[in-house]
Amino acid sequence: MSFTGEQHPGVQAPTAESQGFRLNHTMVRVKDPEKSLAFYTRVFGMRVLRKLDFEELGFSLYFLARLEDGDEVPEDKGQRTVWTFSQKGLLELTHNWGTENQEDFAYHDGNAEPQGFGHICFSVPDLDAAVEWFDANEVEFIKRADQGKMKDVVFVKDVDGYWIEIVEAARLANIGA
Amino acid sequence: MSFTGEQHPGVQAPTAESQGFRLNHTMVRVKDPEKSLAFYTRVFGMRVLRKLDFEELGFSLYFLARLEDGDEVPEDKGQRTVWTFSQKGLLELTHNWGTENQEDFAYHDGNAEPQGFGHICFSVPDLDAAVEWFDANEVEFIKRADQGKMKDVVFVKDVDGYWIEIVEAARLANIGA
Repeated sequence: MSFTGEQHPGVQAPTAESQGFRLNHTMVRVKDPEKSLAFYTRVFGMRVLRKLDFEELGFSLYFLARLEDGDEVPEDKGQRTVWTFSQKGLLELTHNWGTENQEDFAYHDGNAEPQGFGHICFSVPDLDAAVEWFDANEVEFIKRADQGKMKDVVFVKDVDGYWIEIVEAARLANIGA
Repeated sequence: MSFTGEQHPGVQAPTAESQGFRLNHTMVRVKDPEKSLAFYTRVFGMRVLRKLDFEELGFSLYFLARLEDGDEVPEDKGQRTVWTFSQKGLLELTHNWGTENQEDFAYHDGNAEPQGFGHICFSVPDLDAAVEWFDANEVEFIKRADQGKMKDVVFVKDVDGYWIEIVEAARLANIGA
């Protein structure tokens, strides 16, 4: 591993104390888990590793992953929870019970004001094929590959309105200055 | 791979069309990249894979990863960009130029109203050692392991106020119902 990171103002060398840290997951709240699970499992091929219920607190957590060849997911629930929290790049969906029955309830996508969080992003092997697949599933587009100033970058919405960027790595070799 | 995902209302089996999709990154906007880069590289041991500048649009993007043994990051910038967009579990920081000079400027963390995005989460090999490391770096805590109803789960804030959950996988075997 000769490349150890670009130098920019602020960047410091990692120390021993952060060894083994992994970026495990990103959490977004969802209004109706049935719709979100249908969307992320069907359209993005994700699997539910664990659902954790917290009755006293009135919410459930769903941990979703794109399983890959070689992933050995334990069948035992406790072991599977530990495995889940050892992975990187998972999506956690939080369902506060009852929101699915509130007609006017909606979460904030972070791109309208007040801004903060922007999006999650999936890398796909074939952007055109992915776009066809999204159209076949009536996924809502924010921007197609030939729209706007960032060519070859697609944005769609999930069922809560969160933005999902879609990229094909090979088509982005020359993006940015 | 015998485990293929838990069954819950809404869950569907993945199809061939989503094969090869990867959850590449999560994007949050940051006010001052120098402070954010210092925080994520020093405290969390992340490296900057690529900085991409978009002069016409007035922003820069920083792609950060926790590099692991065996990661072969290309030195060539174009190849490194492609490599970056092929990974999973990265953090993208967006810097809209000039925000660092606006005294009252702040991003929205998604946990105050209006809610949406909740947090990112790092898994660490030793939660107590990680907490000591955060204290040594004057990281702000939202909740320590022995506080609140979720034992062994820690939350800290990054420099923009975004929440970061910290977990040690082995201590969570029995979390949730």
